Amino acid sequence: MKILVLNGPNLRLLGQREPGIYGEGTLADAEALAVTAGKQLGAHVDCFQSDIEGELVKKIGEARGVYDGIVINPAAYTHTSIALRDAIAAVEIPTVELHISNTHKREAFRHVSYTAPVCMAQLQGFGIQGYSLAVAGLIAHLQCTKK
Amino acid sequence: MKILVLNGPNLRLLGQREPGIYGEGTLADAEALAVTAGKQLGAHVDCFQSDIEGELVKKIGEARGVYDGIVINPAAYTHTSIALRDAIAAVEIPTVELHISNTHKREAFRHVSYTAPVCMAQLQGFGIQGYSLAVAGLIAHLQCTKK
Amino acid sequence: MKILVLNGPNLRLLGQREPGIYGEGTLADAEALAVTAGKQLGAHVDCFQSDIEGELVKKIGEARGVYDGIVINPAAYTHTSIALRDAIAAVEIPTVELHISNTHKREAFRHVSYTAPVCMAQLQGFGIQGYSLAVAGLIAHLQCTKK
Amino acid sequence: MKILVLNGPNLRLLGQREPGIYGEGTLADAEALAVTAGKQLGAHVDCFQSDIEGELVKKIGEARGVYDGIVINPAAYTHTSIALRDAIAAVEIPTVELHISNTHKREAFRHVSYTAPVCMAQLQGFGIQGYSLAVAGLIAHLQCTKK
Amino acid sequence: MKILVLNGPNLRLLGQREPGIYGEGTLADAEALAVTAGKQLGAHVDCFQSDIEGELVKKIGEARGVYDGIVINPAAYTHTSIALRDAIAAVEIPTVELHISNTHKREAFRHVSYTAPVCMAQLQGFGIQGYSLAVAGLIAHLQCTKK
Amino acid sequence: MKILVLNGPNLRLLGQREPGIYGEGTLADAEALAVTAGKQLGAHVDCFQSDIEGELVKKIGEARGVYDGIVINPAAYTHTSIALRDAIAAVEIPTVELHISNTHKREAFRHVSYTAPVCMAQLQGFGIQGYSLAVAGLIAHLQCTKK
Amino acid sequence: MKILVLNGPNLRLLGQREPGIYGEGTLADAEALAVTAGKQLGAHVDCFQSDIEGELVKKIGEARGVYDGIVINPAAYTHTSIALRDAIAAVEIPTVELHISNTHKREAFRHVSYTAPVCMAQLQGFGIQGYSLAVAGLIAHLQCTKK
Amino acid sequence: MKILVLNGPNLRLLGQREPGIYGEGTLADAEALAVTAGKQLGAHVDCFQSDIEGELVKKIGEARGVYDGIVINPAAYTHTSIALRDAIAAVEIPTVELHISNTHKREAFRHVSYTAPVCMAQLQGFGIQGYSLAVAGLIAHLQCTKK
Amino acid sequence: MKILVLNGPNLRLLGQREPGIYGEGTLADAEALAVTAGKQLGAHVDCFQSDIEGELVKKIGEARGVYDGIVINPAAYTHTSIALRDAIAAVEIPTVELHISNTHKREAFRHVSYTAPVCMAQLQGFGIQGYSLAVAGLIAHLQCTKK
Amino acid sequence: MKILVLNGPNLRLLGQREPGIYGEGTLADAEALAVTAGKQLGAHVDCFQSDIEGELVKKIGEARGVYDGIVINPAAYTHTSIALRDAIAAVEIPTVELHISNTHKREAFRHVSYTAPVCMAQLQGFGIQGYSLAVAGLIAHLQCTKK
Amino acid sequence: MKILVLNGPNLRLLGQREPGIYGEGTLADAEALAVTAGKQLGAHVDCFQSDIEGELVKKIGEARGVYDGIVINPAAYTHTSIALRDAIAAVEIPTVELHISNTHKREAFRHVSYTAPVCMAQLQGFGIQGYSLAVAGLIAHLQCTKK
Amino acid sequence: MKILVLNGPNLRLLGQREPGIYGEGTLADAEALAVTAGKQLGAHVDCFQSDIEGELVKKIGEARGVYDGIVINPAAYTHTSIALRDAIAAVEIPTVELHISNTHKREAFRHVSYTAPVCMAQLQGFGIQGYSLAVAGLIAHLQCTKK
Repeated sequence: MKILVLNGPNLRLLGQREPGIYGEGTLADAEALAVTAGKQLGAHVDCFQSDIEGELVKKIGEARGVYDGIVINPAAYTHTSIALRDAIAAVEIPTVELHISNTHKREAFRHVSYTAPVCMAQLQGFGIQGYSLAVAGLIAHLQCTKK
Repeated sequence: MKILVLNGPNLRLLGQREPGIYGEGTLADAEALAVTAGKQLGAHVDCFQSDIEGELVKKIGEARGVYDGIVINPAAYTHTSIALRDAIAAVEIPTVELHISNTHKREAFRHVSYTAPVCMAQLQGFGIQGYSLAVAGLIAHLQCTKK
Repeated sequence: MKILVLNGPNLRLLGQREPGIYGEGTLADAEALAVTAGKQLGAHVDCFQSDIEGELVKKIGEARGVYDGIVINPAAYTHTSIALRDAIAAVEIPTVELHISNTHKREAFRHVSYTAPVCMAQLQGFGIQGYSLAVAGLIAHLQCTKK
Repeated sequence: MKILVLNGPNLRLLGQREPGIYGEGTLADAEALAVTAGKQLGAHVDCFQSDIEGELVKKIGEARGVYDGIVINPAAYTHTSIALRDAIAAVEIPTVELHISNTHKREAFRHVSYTAPVCMAQLQGFGIQGYSLAVAGLIAHLQCTKK
Repeated sequence: MKILVLNGPNLRLLGQREPGIYGEGTLADAEALAVTAGKQLGAHVDCFQSDIEGELVKKIGEARGVYDGIVINPAAYTHTSIALRDAIAAVEIPTVELHISNTHKREAFRHVSYTAPVCMAQLQGFGIQGYSLAVAGLIAHLQCTKK
Repeated sequence: MKILVLNGPNLRLLGQREPGIYGEGTLADAEALAVTAGKQLGAHVDCFQSDIEGELVKKIGEARGVYDGIVINPAAYTHTSIALRDAIAAVEIPTVELHISNTHKREAFRHVSYTAPVCMAQLQGFGIQGYSLAVAGLIAHLQCTKK
Repeated sequence: MKILVLNGPNLRLLGQREPGIYGEGTLADAEALAVTAGKQLGAHVDCFQSDIEGELVKKIGEARGVYDGIVINPAAYTHTSIALRDAIAAVEIPTVELHISNTHKREAFRHVSYTAPVCMAQLQGFGIQGYSLAVAGLIAHLQCTKK
Repeated sequence: MKILVLNGPNLRLLGQREPGIYGEGTLADAEALAVTAGKQLGAHVDCFQSDIEGELVKKIGEARGVYDGIVINPAAYTHTSIALRDAIAAVEIPTVELHISNTHKREAFRHVSYTAPVCMAQLQGFGIQGYSLAVAGLIAHLQCTKK
Repeated sequence: MKILVLNGPNLRLLGQREPGIYGEGTLADAEALAVTAGKQLGAHVDCFQSDIEGELVKKIGEARGVYDGIVINPAAYTHTSIALRDAIAAVEIPTVELHISNTHKREAFRHVSYTAPVCMAQLQGFGIQGYSLAVAGLIAHLQCTKK
Repeated sequence: MKILVLNGPNLRLLGQREPGIYGEGTLADAEALAVTAGKQLGAHVDCFQSDIEGELVKKIGEARGVYDGIVINPAAYTHTSIALRDAIAAVEIPTVELHISNTHKREAFRHVSYTAPVCMAQLQGFGIQGYSLAVAGLIAHLQCTKK
Repeated sequence: MKILVLNGPNLRLLGQREPGIYGEGTLADAEALAVTAGKQLGAHVDCFQSDIEGELVKKIGEARGVYDGIVINPAAYTHTSIALRDAIAAVEIPTVELHISNTHKREAFRHVSYTAPVCMAQLQGFGIQGYSLAVAGLIAHLQCTKK
Repeated sequence: MKILVLNGPNLRLLGQREPGIYGEGTLADAEALAVTAGKQLGAHVDCFQSDIEGELVKKIGEARGVYDGIVINPAAYTHTSIALRDAIAAVEIPTVELHISNTHKREAFRHVSYTAPVCMAQLQGFGIQGYSLAVAGLIAHLQCTKK
């Protein structure tokens, strides 16, 4: 079982970026949590980050037939990118959308997600701990639907 | 560590109610998943269901000083109950909002949550498996903030 | 053939409540019309009224396998209750929504019905005479679909 | 007692037109149901169909002093015709608005009715059976207000 | 100088139709006022009424090169007819829009006029006396622009 | 019979101000047209202009018992002044709202009038010639209602 | 003279609940202020609190013929309950709506009140001192209208 | 293969009507382009124009079983006619919507099409040359789906 | 303790202005109620009325260091004046907003208050009796916060 | 004559991506249709695809003076990219916007196009056959405007 | 070269008014910065402040032929005054709109400017230093367009 | 003191692109103005342009600790990029937003800026001269806050 963890724009700044909202863990910490959670449940996890919408789109397009599931934190692109939505819908790989902060506590424009309706599930507000939960929840789902 | 799991209107019908959307697990199954997840992580879990908004409000009001965390699936009241929001805000107990289905795939009126902005975190779309994840995520959060 | 007639909040006041809008018949008169219409067409009619949203939700949840059809006047909850909508959708019993007054002549917030889209039919503006028509229309529908 | 039954655009296609939505009865069947219901309750029923908004407007304008009540299925013009609304308001004849399908289950633009607020009552979703119910409800109303 | 006075749907009912709003003058009275005002100022006035949007559209299309000015009371079509707007814009004849009642005192949907932005001027609320004023104002304008 | 003609902000600039929209006549020209029209129909006309909303409000408040009718061009305050609306409603003097240009051809914010719903009539787009028409229409109305 | 003081959801938590917004007085303190104010002005005051919308609806329905006036703090139900609005309108007892905090300083959804348009008056932002003012204002009104 | 080309209101004025927007070709020119394109690709093309919405509705209703495809330029009715939409949906004949101008460059109310969602395809902005393209595209589609 | 009572546009007309809405008391009566209430509670009350927004703004600006509290009835400016809001926010004097009528029963544009969010409290619907209540409530608040 | 065919995000997946919506032809098939249509009408066609908004922007910026016309399928960027709109407006090359599916049948957010108002024409719903039609229509337009 | 610097309501309070938002400089400081910047670049600067919208309107109306440019800080009137907008448009003098604070960080109603679309330029957020920049930018513009 | 000047999509086309809106200066001219202004005030200025949103995001992310201030002309991304907003908020470097044209005179979608609320200041409409003003204003601010 192979899982792709994608991180969107500005997430390289995790740890220094508005720690009151995003916490003090770094991107490396978050990715490590995902990899570890995968390992414990028998799945291989690859990670990729980009600030460029089109590179994330491309990465998803290439995931078909390679990965069984995707965990994506589209960051700001959540609220503006129909291209990411189309990519997720196109490849038909079960995808979990993840946000570090609880977007419901923030600006109104963060309450709209273009990507969530084509994802299998969404979780937010658990800090970087959410990467473990997302991987665990995705694997549980993949095991269910495999049977 | 004590956790209260609250379920809102119509959730007693789980298993028979639109299984294409909500799956085939019953309310008892969902509550069992929460209790088990709690036990594994050293927490006691109590469960309560009501179809009446005001009874859920009252239950939350009485939780202060008794429970360390709340997992709530407010069901239809998510989108209409300011009273539940006020109750959660009033007791200041870390709360996770949970939905069995991915509400983003459904009617527009389900995309608005009155309760999410006063919760610590939210997850949806994982089926009744979400009860395990919510309890796990809540406990992880409580352990973090206790230190 | 068994039919459940449900009446929502403030309908106990029928006859005294704004007779210019609701007419002078009482709740008992309205229920009698429904029972009589049922009898004439060979159906048993039970009636229930509550001011509490959750009690109506519960009543509908318990109707599954007991009643062949429901006539509901959700009154004010028509415009605010997603919980009632979910209950009707959950039990999959053909339901007719009824209003005594013509809501189109009234405040804009009464022009939206959460329950109508999950009902089989809707009628309004016939005064309490609507209870006869609703029962007759519902029975005609049930006889059609039975064949 | 004389009643005018008016049918708007595309209703001549009834029976062949999207039978999943409108059923398999033809316009002739619907009109026959209205005429029969009238006869049983001692009223004469005339029927008229047109695809042209202005012809329906004219017909209503000429109804004053000739008909005691009107049953109208304005079809698509329900949602776009202020001219029909003005005609109904102008002649001051009690009018029942009728829809074969439950418009609440359909596109948002069908949820607005320009004509309903000037009608006495409205019913929808009963299929062509609605023509019987509308005539019956209208006659009951006319008998009440005559006394 | 030739002027065309056009009246839209339901205006044949003038005098009997909601006299509290539209006054007691008939369509013939209104047209006579327009003809008289024209005569006094040296212009010939023709009048035409139709309930059918497309007939009014056609009449305007045929006015090009025949009439110097148009006075139109589009009645209900004011608020719904882009076809009338396009016709007025197409023939490029100075046009005055007229309403008998003050539409600003009425329903919100009467506050929007598709035709006014392509007309030269608009007046409303003067009762049928407005037909004299409209013809007078139009002739004054035509005399100005001729010089 | 006494009539008060009120002009709002920036109308002192008439003639120099955007002549493509407002024409080349000055405020004095416009007022002269109103006075002349009044004289011809046996009415005395007084004129007042102010750039200050509150001064116009005050002037209207003092008109009670002094003037039989008001013609007002509220200019920019048309779209923003509830105080002017309240003043017109308070004194209960028949009032005609006037605009030199056709506001329907201009920015959307000019399509809303706070004052028109409490006026008897409105006219616009006739240039300064509108002052004659407004006075004539107002006098005709006052003569009608006097009888 | 008898007055009913009604308090809605979460108000039992007064004093502990977000004291920065609601102050430190308890529900008992607030009710005592109302009772005392009544006594001083010669009126008997009864108090009732419930978290359940339908129980408040029922209480109001039963107030007819028993109480001369109502003071209600509908709390969260202010913004969501058409049922409470209908109850107040139905019993036709002069009612004052009260809020402890100034809702204008808070979330946009608290700026809408379903109940205020059917109440006689509204006050907010005076803390629990508002209970005295509401009772005093209500009694003054009842004395005026009695004469 | 038989194709029906329908043209809506004001299109008879083509060539004289706002040539800056619609070009200088006449309706006859446009129809000739459609007929020629059809001939070249082996299809017979009939043309019909009307200013009356209901006549277009009727024509479409009668096309069932007679025509294989429809090209329609509903002109102003594009944006206001649910009756045309219902007609196209009712007859289930592949239909191409055509506009001579690019409606996206024009007023906001022209950006909404009631008919496009029930058409197979839409093209706009190619001037009357669009009639050739529409016929060609429609025939290509019909040939594809026939196989 | 010194209190400033400010009254906005058209309030000089109190007593003659729409007595069905505003009652029959005059501005002098209202101001006397405020002065008397102040005297009884040991505060000096000054009164000022203006129809001019900017004069009210100036008066508030000059109140700093002179008055302990303000009672303001901004009348029509409530709904349109950001300048008044900024003035109240700038001087940081506790302010009570007052309306004679219950604005919730009136036009939608009266449901928005620019000034209320920067006021300490608001009351409406008590007629001119509200001036006593506002002064009393303000003094109670000032005494609380002084301690 | 040289034409540039641009394809936006996810179009590399054509053929595998949601074939129910986009058909089974690949991007190579679509580009071949464009090239062939160009060849037949004497024009050279170059093709370029990118998932990255900024690369498409750059490509358009470099097209000035090199290409006579552009055919663009902006895919998801149609609905979100003002940068693409600005690029098309900046280079002033006649551009045809193309969509494979009929966007009017899909989600509301696909009904808005930032690019269409600066394009010469738009076509949609013809499947990949649209590429031939777009090239043909563009060449016809270029030949017209050249003369 | 002569420049007029206009300041709107509440700006006399600068320095004491919400210094966290507006800084600690006074109106005199701000005006001095403008005068000095003018002197250094060879322009004479006059300053005027008023709390009254109509006085600012009048001042602008009188500026024609006297001043070469205007710098205006309309303060609260930015968001509500169409009269100021009309004045600026009427006199056709290049005008720079200035705000001391960054209005984009503040309430939504401050994000709309009626005056900016008729100004040449706008700057905000530079504190009172903005007065220097505005004068400098305006002079640079006037020197450019003079050549 | 080091300042970074960032330019977004299509700005490489400056000088050729719609000179009526953007003027005739090139990007090199604009950057030279910024560099010169910086030099005169003792600051080093670096310039960077990209059409790719993600490259601008990355550049801002890398500016932390390297630059004291940023001047950004996000061009089209102003209105669509939450990623740029998040980047500016993340690095906490004082930033000035700049537009060459006055966006208030243009399409409504250009009136919304995602980036302005996280910038220190904004200026627009000064043409490329704005680059000098922005650098000057930014340096003045940095000198103030340093002290």
